[in-house]
Amino acid sequence: MRDPLAPPEVPRRLLMGSGPSNPEFRVLQALATSPLPADVPGFEQVLTDVTALCRSIFQASAESAALTVPGASRSGLEAAIASLVRPGDRVLVGVYGHFGELLCTLAARHGGTVERIDADWGQPVDPDTMVRRIRENPPRLAAIVHADTSTGVLQPLEDIGAACRATNTLLLVDVVLSLGGCEVNVADWNVNVAVAGLQKCLGGPPGLALLTASPSAQDAFTGGESAYLDLRRLAHTRDELSIPMVFAAHEAMRMVMNEGLAPRWQRHQRASDALRAGIEAIGLERFGNPRYHVPMITLVEVPDGMDEAGVRQQLLEQHGIEIMAAFGPLRGRVWRIGTMGTNACLPSVLALLGGLESVLHSRGFRWQPRGAAVDAAIAAWG
Amino acid sequence: MRDPLAPPEVPRRLLMGSGPSNPEFRVLQALATSPLPADVPGFEQVLTDVTALCRSIFQASAESAALTVPGASRSGLEAAIASLVRPGDRVLVGVYGHFGELLCTLAARHGGTVERIDADWGQPVDPDTMVRRIRENPPRLAAIVHADTSTGVLQPLEDIGAACRATNTLLLVDVVLSLGGCEVNVADWNVNVAVAGLQKCLGGPPGLALLTASPSAQDAFTGGESAYLDLRRLAHTRDELSIPMVFAAHEAMRMVMNEGLAPRWQRHQRASDALRAGIEAIGLERFGNPRYHVPMITLVEVPDGMDEAGVRQQLLEQHGIEIMAAFGPLRGRVWRIGTMGTNACLPSVLALLGGLESVLHSRGFRWQPRGAAVDAAIAAWG
Repeated sequence: MRDPLAPPEVPRRLLMGSGPSNPEFRVLQALATSPLPADVPGFEQVLTDVTALCRSIFQASAESAALTVPGASRSGLEAAIASLVRPGDRVLVGVYGHFGELLCTLAARHGGTVERIDADWGQPVDPDTMVRRIRENPPRLAAIVHADTSTGVLQPLEDIGAACRATNTLLLVDVVLSLGGCEVNVADWNVNVAVAGLQKCLGGPPGLALLTASPSAQDAFTGGESAYLDLRRLAHTRDELSIPMVFAAHEAMRMVMNEGLAPRWQRHQRASDALRAGIEAIGLERFGNPRYHVPMITLVEVPDGMDEAGVRQQLLEQHGIEIMAAFGPLRGRVWRIGTMGTNACLPSVLALLGGLESVLHSRGFRWQPRGAAVDAAIAAWG
Repeated sequence: MRDPLAPPEVPRRLLMGSGPSNPEFRVLQALATSPLPADVPGFEQVLTDVTALCRSIFQASAESAALTVPGASRSGLEAAIASLVRPGDRVLVGVYGHFGELLCTLAARHGGTVERIDADWGQPVDPDTMVRRIRENPPRLAAIVHADTSTGVLQPLEDIGAACRATNTLLLVDVVLSLGGCEVNVADWNVNVAVAGLQKCLGGPPGLALLTASPSAQDAFTGGESAYLDLRRLAHTRDELSIPMVFAAHEAMRMVMNEGLAPRWQRHQRASDALRAGIEAIGLERFGNPRYHVPMITLVEVPDGMDEAGVRQQLLEQHGIEIMAAFGPLRGRVWRIGTMGTNACLPSVLALLGGLESVLHSRGFRWQPRGAAVDAAIAAWG
């Protein structure tokens, strides 16, 4: 019988699943900054910095608002939808994975009439189809995921954004997975509202959503039923702030900008290339259209006859490395391996390949020579 | 021009306003625990502990649910109201300060027909009046604040709870200020849903609401418009969890239960007694009906002709001690001084009295002998 007064037992883990990833130690330390009341000048300055840093990382215009919403990234997505969708509004959603389904669910829950464009899992939504639908009959809101952890696919956004601009359609994009790991440019792509979290490629813990809103999105904000999710109100209140999470966001974004956006995207790409080279050297195959692979999560097809869950379990218990199962149509068929934030580096890739190699060997999946994966990863990292 | 890449400058502060109070260092450290994915056994165990600890601290039945809602305490209040109030439901709210007004606002925003019973600021709501209204025409929900930071008044709840039980009326109580600082007994008082935060008397930072729900409240939960605020969903999902804040809640509640509820309430009472003895020795007067004073915040009347905001500003800038202004009808007339969590102790009380004494002297408010406040506080602490 566990004593609830005992300290928690938190195992050491290399988090290489679909997120959260291991946070930067400096970001965890920032959580322990003594809180300041939300209305003091020192805290106002932190909030001003957070806004400036958000604009830089999202590549948003100087007129954009930057907001934080406590809770998981999906709190931010729901706040965006609650603030943009009025009952009966038409919402066009591009769906190519689990998180596109979430956008549909949230839009319907807030009274929107959802129209969807589906793509097969492993492919992005066809931009031409979405552009045509927007131009023919502009909805109130178009919504799509930039990079979906469920499929590892990156969605091209430029043409969709241009069609939205031409038709005065609002565009909402989920950049939870992509921000900090590959290019996100909400100004050039005409994204009106973009939503991210700290726990993927930004090197922070889960617990806060980051959000930018263009001037036209701010003008369009409507009051939903919930005060909590009302971005008009959140833009002007300090009532809901999670002060530790704001300090964490500040430190995570400082680290991103000190590294530089382009070097950080390149680091994620190198880690992804190294992982994929190693996976291919083992003889495993990647899932999805290679033209649209994201650089922060890699979907690997489970070899015939291999126990998908058993391998993950063994990797976790024997080597302390977490990778993830897949959702929906991919369940049991692929593993999802993340290289996000702190784990977008060669040591984490080598640890994963070493552990996976050992587990697969123990289960009779063998190849020659044994060190091929490591050699290939090191060569690809360059 | 401030560089947003510079580290934040966070002044050291003794937070003796209406909250947040200074957190326990051990709780801040717990925020920096490496996050675990929400579906691993180690994290499930932490969540189980959190439920057990919540039941102990709220004195809730073993059948009660305990939930965490990320964001400020008001996120928890709004989640409770969104989950209990259906459009057109009658909601009877007892109002004796700012946070009773908030309950009215939230109930109306979620479609409730609000009926209110008002008390003068400085007095609790008359329990007999509220009991009569509940018995004559039972509403769907009765809602009231247990201890309101805006007035420093404690609301008697036993009779109201008994009337709710007799009429099958749901009772929602805001225990944000009181939990951990004085007795809260949701089982004996028949409170169906109680909502607290970490940042007042529990020794934690702001960023998470804690909530208990009785079995009949759980049966009554209805799905509002917002998925985020839907407690039926929150009870069964890990999607919204702020993992660092859950670790902080765990550590804060461990510290509460290791101290013991009764000793902790007594410590808050002693700190309050010491502060009040010191304040009276200076010749200042307390606001509100002494029979109903809470032990964690003390409202002090501003002497005639004294610059209310100037004193607070000087106390902050010269001595690093924060006290708070008042809301609404009390603005400019009283200071609010908190003795919550880590600051419910003699050293914090002495620091406050020393600083306040110095500021008042410098502004020409003098009394004899100069050390009277300190002597009185030490004597009252005992």
